[in-house]
Amino acid sequence: MLRFIFSALFTFVILSAAHAQEWMSLVEDSDLSGWTKLGGDASYEASDGVVTGTTSADTPNTFLATAKTYSDFALSVELWVDPDINSGIQIRSESRDDYLDGRVHGYQVEIDPSPRAWSGGIYDEARRGWLYPLSVNQHCREAFQLEEWNHYYVEAIGHFIRTWVNDVPCAALYDDMTSEGFIALQVHSVPDSELAGRHVRWRNIKITDENVSPRPWTDNYVINLVPNTLSEQEVDQGFSLLFDGESTNGWRGAGKESFPEKGWKVEDGILMVEASGGAESAYGGDIVTMDEYSTFELSLDFKLTEGANSGIKYFITESYGSDASAIGLEFQLLDDENHPDATQGAAGNRTIGSLYDLIPAYEGKTVRKPGQWNRARIIVSGTRMDDAISGSRMEQSEFVGAHVEHWLNDRKVVEYERGTPVFDALVARSKYVVWEGFGHWPQGHLLLQDHGDEVHFRSIKVRTLN
Amino acid sequence: MLRFIFSALFTFVILSAAHAQEWMSLVEDSDLSGWTKLGGDASYEASDGVVTGTTSADTPNTFLATAKTYSDFALSVELWVDPDINSGIQIRSESRDDYLDGRVHGYQVEIDPSPRAWSGGIYDEARRGWLYPLSVNQHCREAFQLEEWNHYYVEAIGHFIRTWVNDVPCAALYDDMTSEGFIALQVHSVPDSELAGRHVRWRNIKITDENVSPRPWTDNYVINLVPNTLSEQEVDQGFSLLFDGESTNGWRGAGKESFPEKGWKVEDGILMVEASGGAESAYGGDIVTMDEYSTFELSLDFKLTEGANSGIKYFITESYGSDASAIGLEFQLLDDENHPDATQGAAGNRTIGSLYDLIPAYEGKTVRKPGQWNRARIIVSGTRMDDAISGSRMEQSEFVGAHVEHWLNDRKVVEYERGTPVFDALVARSKYVVWEGFGHWPQGHLLLQDHGDEVHFRSIKVRTLN
Repeated sequence: MLRFIFSALFTFVILSAAHAQEWMSLVEDSDLSGWTKLGGDASYEASDGVVTGTTSADTPNTFLATAKTYSDFALSVELWVDPDINSGIQIRSESRDDYLDGRVHGYQVEIDPSPRAWSGGIYDEARRGWLYPLSVNQHCREAFQLEEWNHYYVEAIGHFIRTWVNDVPCAALYDDMTSEGFIALQVHSVPDSELAGRHVRWRNIKITDENVSPRPWTDNYVINLVPNTLSEQEVDQGFSLLFDGESTNGWRGAGKESFPEKGWKVEDGILMVEASGGAESAYGGDIVTMDEYSTFELSLDFKLTEGANSGIKYFITESYGSDASAIGLEFQLLDDENHPDATQGAAGNRTIGSLYDLIPAYEGKTVRKPGQWNRARIIVSGTRMDDAISGSRMEQSEFVGAHVEHWLNDRKVVEYERGTPVFDALVARSKYVVWEGFGHWPQGHLLLQDHGDEVHFRSIKVRTLN
Repeated sequence: MLRFIFSALFTFVILSAAHAQEWMSLVEDSDLSGWTKLGGDASYEASDGVVTGTTSADTPNTFLATAKTYSDFALSVELWVDPDINSGIQIRSESRDDYLDGRVHGYQVEIDPSPRAWSGGIYDEARRGWLYPLSVNQHCREAFQLEEWNHYYVEAIGHFIRTWVNDVPCAALYDDMTSEGFIALQVHSVPDSELAGRHVRWRNIKITDENVSPRPWTDNYVINLVPNTLSEQEVDQGFSLLFDGESTNGWRGAGKESFPEKGWKVEDGILMVEASGGAESAYGGDIVTMDEYSTFELSLDFKLTEGANSGIKYFITESYGSDASAIGLEFQLLDDENHPDATQGAAGNRTIGSLYDLIPAYEGKTVRKPGQWNRARIIVSGTRMDDAISGSRMEQSEFVGAHVEHWLNDRKVVEYERGTPVFDALVARSKYVVWEGFGHWPQGHLLLQDHGDEVHFRSIKVRTLN
């Protein structure tokens, strides 16, 4: 036994040594020799290892970039920023003659002291815009402290980029666009001269880029831009793919035992419903998951064609025997600008993202046009205990999956409680009033709708919530 | 200055002495000589100052009552109860030949280890039933600890009876039915022999009944059964009367400068709308408060006549210029059983207690028949911050008075959030769709509706919430 312990200890010491991360300081004293200024004309100086960037009027975004490029690394830095200005840290970034005349572009870890408070999110500078907005991570929005030094930790390993602000998990981005590039400290352009002369400071800038081992997996939402894949963190969170990119495994026709023989196809990693004249479930028909779900999180990417109508339905109960599309709650998919149903219903409750014919999506929603990919996400969670007190008795009933959220392109657009009087009143004045017990189901299938228009789906993921 | 301090100190000592409460033990050792058993045949015994009551099969509620009666007093007692049985402490109670053949009746401070958890509430034994149910005080429902000794504090001063369980404020009842009576320890009857032989125990039973000074006022809801009065605690909480019992001061006709000359009258402490044929605001017309309210708590008693229709409206905005009843949100008043509107609307949203034509009242609501008094309560509270994030900007807007509750006879029957997409969707399919901005108003008058049927109002109280 003793021998085993010694053996284990020895092995541990060896492995630890092999995985020891060596941290290197990127700035010593006032030495900025490993850095180059790119972009605008804001100024940088170093003193005692603290880099101070100072805003300047009439100049574009300025970057102090490392000469060296980094692929897999972890970066640790403390920073302080004037509360009136914006800043950021570029990682895996580039400045190339063949891209916007050398403009610095790539992943930027945000420094945002504005009321929006998206510090720790990831913006794709001069390229795709917001990749990881903090609308999906309210907890992180509270991590950054105004007018204090804040600690940022950034980890880039393979496709996975993760950030922490003061040790709160912030962004979790899985992307394969750029795997290597410089690190750069941004001084943002300022809109008027009054904001010139303001400071942003970085200190204790340390990096490790060999044998980088990931921090433990966390429970913040992962934005995964690599089609039909699961990052390790998503696997750890319990997600599985409902579409493998190649087959229709896991799906069947609604009310049928097998997958439709026409109307649907898989091509180039896309599950596609074909155009067939715009009628509801008249050609290939809707498809449903083999499994049923009660509390769950579903996310998928979808791409509409012009004027298209489709939908993602949940809690599908095939026993109703509807002649048309199967009955369930529907996350509406619609080209609002080119399909007449957008103006039907009430208060906009048939527009994209809405709970169809019941609750309109948030007016400020971000919608990408037909031909572009959008992300839909449905969360059904929680158990409500309904108390019924009658005389000296009290009866409690459980309503599982009470709380529902619709997310469209990383913004929450609908939020409601199933089975409440408010919900029942909405149903009673909707097209669903004819279906007994509508929306009170304890579980059901997930469904992709065939509304006779071409619509593309990919990266379909689901996990059960407890 | 020193002289002033000594003087103040001296005065304080004198006043303290004058107000010192002397506590007397009601049970010493095994001595129950000051007590009498009434009602059923459950057993009581005392040992070391602990009174143990034991349930018995086939016997009604049993009471161990003090020979002495108490009017103003404070009672302090610790108690332990078997979690399967119910018990209570009678105060200001009586056993009289001329009432139900001597049956013990009167105020009972509840001991309720059931899931309902109404320990500390006040039940009127063999008389009016629940006076202070804990449906109005969720905080107190968590005060009682199962299978532990719990400390009860009961204070009866003038009309005001208040209770604390483990120092959590529970009941606050203002009532004038009985001002003096005995104290009694209840052993409840049991429904089957399996529950015979179970125990409830009381110890450290102490009372003070001279110079009883009230504990500080607390913020739990006061149930005041004395018409058109305010208890000191309600005054402390900021309530004022909107009806003085004698005049129509504080009210005017909706859309008018003065009070209607016909259709309304004040009689015997009642503000009454007279019968005029059942039409909406056609005779005397609706009346509104002089003042407007934004966040507030309104409570009143109302009594319907058979088949009557009326309503309490809030956020009244007279500028719409409606021909019929003024436009606002309405707590529906209706004789559900005898007025056809109860079956109209959707999902029951025109029945009593409902947010008229929008949200149905809780099905399990308690409704007292025409000719009996009911209590209505409307709470409008809270400010919701709506975030609109657009690009790098974030705009926040305040929605004051976002959360609304309707209470009917001490049960919450409707709960909703004004100005949400769910709310707007409800409005869009209601009779209110024609009124621009319906339900989004920042403040408005309170209104009592003339729907041509005789309805009585009294004890109309309001306070502004912050």
